[in-house]
Amino acid sequence: MPFQRRMRNIPLADIKLTDPFWKRWQDVLVEVTLPTQFEQLESTGRLANFEKAANKAGNFEGLWFNDSDVYKFAEACVYALAVRNSVTVRGYLDVISKLVSAAQEPDGYINTFFQLDHPTMKWRNLNMMHEMYCGGHLIEAGVAAFECLGDHRLLDVSIKFADHVMSIFGPDKKVGFCGHEEFELALIKLAGATKNTQYLEFASWMVDVRGHQPSPFEAELEDKEASSLWPGTGSLLIKDGKYNGEYCQDHAPIREHTKVVGHAVRAMYLYIAAAELADGANDEALESALESTWINLTRRRMYVTGGIGPSASNEGFTTDFDLPNLSAYAETCASCGLVFWGQKMLELTGSSEYADITERAIFNGVLSGISLSGDHYFYANPLESRGTHRRTPWFTCACCPPNIARLIGSISNYAVSAGDASFYIHIPAGIDTTVTFNHIKVHIEIKSEYPWSGAFKVSVSPEKPVSFKLYVRIPEWSEEMETDLPGAEEPAGYEDGYAVFDRTWKPGDTLTVDWVMNPQWIEADPRVKDNLGRVALINGPLVYCAEEVDCGLAPQLLSVDVEAPIEVTKSKLLQGINLLASEGMAEIVEDSDELYLPEGTTSVESASPKFIPYFAWNNRGPNNMQVWLRKL
Amino acid sequence: MPFQRRMRNIPLADIKLTDPFWKRWQDVLVEVTLPTQFEQLESTGRLANFEKAANKAGNFEGLWFNDSDVYKFAEACVYALAVRNSVTVRGYLDVISKLVSAAQEPDGYINTFFQLDHPTMKWRNLNMMHEMYCGGHLIEAGVAAFECLGDHRLLDVSIKFADHVMSIFGPDKKVGFCGHEEFELALIKLAGATKNTQYLEFASWMVDVRGHQPSPFEAELEDKEASSLWPGTGSLLIKDGKYNGEYCQDHAPIREHTKVVGHAVRAMYLYIAAAELADGANDEALESALESTWINLTRRRMYVTGGIGPSASNEGFTTDFDLPNLSAYAETCASCGLVFWGQKMLELTGSSEYADITERAIFNGVLSGISLSGDHYFYANPLESRGTHRRTPWFTCACCPPNIARLIGSISNYAVSAGDASFYIHIPAGIDTTVTFNHIKVHIEIKSEYPWSGAFKVSVSPEKPVSFKLYVRIPEWSEEMETDLPGAEEPAGYEDGYAVFDRTWKPGDTLTVDWVMNPQWIEADPRVKDNLGRVALINGPLVYCAEEVDCGLAPQLLSVDVEAPIEVTKSKLLQGINLLASEGMAEIVEDSDELYLPEGTTSVESASPKFIPYFAWNNRGPNNMQVWLRKL
Repeated sequence: MPFQRRMRNIPLADIKLTDPFWKRWQDVLVEVTLPTQFEQLESTGRLANFEKAANKAGNFEGLWFNDSDVYKFAEACVYALAVRNSVTVRGYLDVISKLVSAAQEPDGYINTFFQLDHPTMKWRNLNMMHEMYCGGHLIEAGVAAFECLGDHRLLDVSIKFADHVMSIFGPDKKVGFCGHEEFELALIKLAGATKNTQYLEFASWMVDVRGHQPSPFEAELEDKEASSLWPGTGSLLIKDGKYNGEYCQDHAPIREHTKVVGHAVRAMYLYIAAAELADGANDEALESALESTWINLTRRRMYVTGGIGPSASNEGFTTDFDLPNLSAYAETCASCGLVFWGQKMLELTGSSEYADITERAIFNGVLSGISLSGDHYFYANPLESRGTHRRTPWFTCACCPPNIARLIGSISNYAVSAGDASFYIHIPAGIDTTVTFNHIKVHIEIKSEYPWSGAFKVSVSPEKPVSFKLYVRIPEWSEEMETDLPGAEEPAGYEDGYAVFDRTWKPGDTLTVDWVMNPQWIEADPRVKDNLGRVALINGPLVYCAEEVDCGLAPQLLSVDVEAPIEVTKSKLLQGINLLASEGMAEIVEDSDELYLPEGTTSVESASPKFIPYFAWNNRGPNNMQVWLRKL
Repeated sequence: MPFQRRMRNIPLADIKLTDPFWKRWQDVLVEVTLPTQFEQLESTGRLANFEKAANKAGNFEGLWFNDSDVYKFAEACVYALAVRNSVTVRGYLDVISKLVSAAQEPDGYINTFFQLDHPTMKWRNLNMMHEMYCGGHLIEAGVAAFECLGDHRLLDVSIKFADHVMSIFGPDKKVGFCGHEEFELALIKLAGATKNTQYLEFASWMVDVRGHQPSPFEAELEDKEASSLWPGTGSLLIKDGKYNGEYCQDHAPIREHTKVVGHAVRAMYLYIAAAELADGANDEALESALESTWINLTRRRMYVTGGIGPSASNEGFTTDFDLPNLSAYAETCASCGLVFWGQKMLELTGSSEYADITERAIFNGVLSGISLSGDHYFYANPLESRGTHRRTPWFTCACCPPNIARLIGSISNYAVSAGDASFYIHIPAGIDTTVTFNHIKVHIEIKSEYPWSGAFKVSVSPEKPVSFKLYVRIPEWSEEMETDLPGAEEPAGYEDGYAVFDRTWKPGDTLTVDWVMNPQWIEADPRVKDNLGRVALINGPLVYCAEEVDCGLAPQLLSVDVEAPIEVTKSKLLQGINLLASEGMAEIVEDSDELYLPEGTTSVESASPKFIPYFAWNNRGPNNMQVWLRKL
């Protein structure tokens, strides 16, 4: 089936989140996450950079792409304001909107690093200096503010910036694109918000022109003055003395991509744009490239947590099946990017395999990036710890905190979508929403205790009877899905991994669904050398892990008995979780004079390991943790 | 027992090596290793740097400490010439001796990096710029040439350099010592060769003054011009904004050391000097520091191969029991340093525990650093490979190749030693030597096929009957040692891990020894998390490994059956080895659509793993390798 949009986001303002799990996260977002992030933006000079640029006085403080943190934060504020009336959060958005508007130069340029410190160096080092990347995040914030709140302040800045870029670059002007993709996907959003297809065409050109040789980045690398803006450039883009664009996906034209390479976040952002461009285009080469690359990513290069990009040195991909646990980079932003790309693929194909992955990433690799308290973050999300990892309140390179904030703020969009005559439930979050089919308003209410239970109820209340298809995802993790729709004349249909209830809905119709959820041990493809002889425990969408604080010993010492029963207990621990417990054996650590001993010297004892959801680890201090445990 | 020298090296020229194993290595040394290294010294500008310095014209080429490679190579040439008459090797030594003499400045200074490129910056960045380190290797070469060959050319340069340093630094002059230890141990050798105790006293001061706060390095780090000579300085010596001398063992006075920290080679070289200084000094604090540190090193921080220093980032130590296999740094030079230090401890204590470690390091962690062909090297010596490791002909930082060359050249000194009325066999290499006890010449011949057999024969032929003690090490790896000395009236005695044959020896006395050698599985202390559930196979002094090329599959897939018999076969493979074979199971790799599967999906099949000595791996192309295998 060709890529063709099958569903869209329901406006956030039209969705009331009642879900206990996600409502807590959104409460924390408004009460803790956004206020503490705003403090960081202030205290680290990120906001001051805009003020200085507006006043044309002072030096830039921080990393050259720090403007983007402010924009992403603004976007997160917009999502929060779409569903809550918070004077505080509105204040943040006002401050930022004013600062950003004031900082923009008359010709539309905005990037406080260049404006303050290097006004003569603009657009000379696209490969590393992130001017378009920052502008892309500006545009995403501007579009969000306009679409969710009707606030056009940042959109105006965005349009001026986009028009400025298009006055310099283009098919009949200079060839150029950003080393860090983002601007492309943002332009597509801008085209949607403004109904101006020029932005779409420009984004299309930019995606297409990337990866052709010689790359415009090769000339940039020869420009010593431009390269000296960030001396690390060469080491990432030059291999064996030659230009190698893999780091920024400039290694091959998009339609020739078959594998994910280079910097993981960059790759995800490129493919989001590319997927959008494939919508309705009947571009088989592009669809095939996206599908192959997605398969390579999710079947060869993705952690069980939905973490991607194992290597710190390039913040990205290495080789198939190279998924070390202790040194896993698995940047929070990369998992966010995987969710964004997966959601696009889902919207364009309607296939639940994409939702299976976005769900996995959201509940594990993304959510582990933030503390339960909402004010500490992981940049890297390892699958094993030996007690040295801890979340921190902020980073010098602080891309992750506002990225997770905007994802939590817009989580409803990943739970449900709507088509012209269809309603999709991807993730059964508890929500109240009203959609319109054939001019008839339909109130839909989902009651759920997900992810702690797979049972949920969908009440459909149209103003008057109306036909539409209700799609309910069949999750790949569940062995059985039970549904009950009193009065239904026909069994549910099936489409691309969704159960489909295609009927005329009447007020009071209630669908009961049970995604049968039992904890299960899983193993990895044996080509993942780091996981040989090991198993991981999942329960529904959640990957579990063993943390020393619960087990009473370092989980690395454990070998689990996969035949033993797994006990599930509702626990008040960690803001309320399902705690899992099983059985196994553990090596006994005794003080020894010898480091190496005859085999059989070490004794073992029986052990009763406990498991908590991976996302909740490291909330009780640093300690030993393991996702992949040895199997007895 | 206080540290007191119990034995000394027998001059290399007095030892004829007949041992099949080591003679092959020394043949390769003379025929391949030294000639190819000389070519590298030429082609990389290392020799030319001296020529340029002599001519006071031209710029320095390479890394700032490259002079040391030339000196270490010269020392290796000396050892080769002590036992063979090679015109070629003599030519190398002549060339180097002339170049070095010519390059020395009238005041005694010599360091071609500073002479050519930074003549005004001498002695301003001791923490990182290696002037004394290079000078130390000059002195080691000079002493070796003088003692082994009676050649005083490099010794003369050495004396002038040492005197020059002592004219600038000292207790009543400037406080200073080198960030990379080496000069101290070299000065002690120089004192021995010249009988000038000033050098010993200066070395003693230099060891003692290190580690006191504030460090002279703190002021150096403030000197921006000096620090800019190598911009990496700060990152290694400053932690959390404060000076931290651990990287170069400048964290505490020597007598307060209890753990190995920082750069591994530096640490070893410091402790070699410190051990020498403890000789006969009745310095309990120093002895205790050395013993504690040795115990920490060998029982907490040493790979089973005798590799030390697991981390690439500081080329050194991390925390107790942190011994990752795949990412093991275990620099070849660090294992050489462990051998040098262990040998000193052995000479001063007479305790076989030190010889157990030097033997382990020599036969495994050191020898893996060089290809069987003698012209390719590992800098890092991992205990697991996923097919990406390969030895290379040279390195930009080429400390390891000449270090291993000088160790192979002087291997006899690690096999046997002599005291005033004692002869020690630490490692049963096949040798012919003549020593003198009580003015009576004693010819001692050892016949051995070590390490392929633990049985060896020691023939003692004094000119006339003479009393001395023959010490034969009791190796910790052997469960049983059998000896037979026809005509002996008393059983062997025991002293510090040695069997002692104390008698009047007559011509024709022959001692037969069998160190019973059987392959055995060993395990690591369970605090070594990387080895939990894993075993390694050793046979005598050799650590074995499984290489894909022999096993037909990546050894990571294997689980070995430790109950199965282990077959030993003499094989012509890899220049002749004992090949070991056992049984186990292996996961079957099948192309799968899913990366994560229900536990139990992957099938296993029986497997017949084969094992080769670790030192011999990677001689048939890069491939998967593992020392620590999973246990069934």
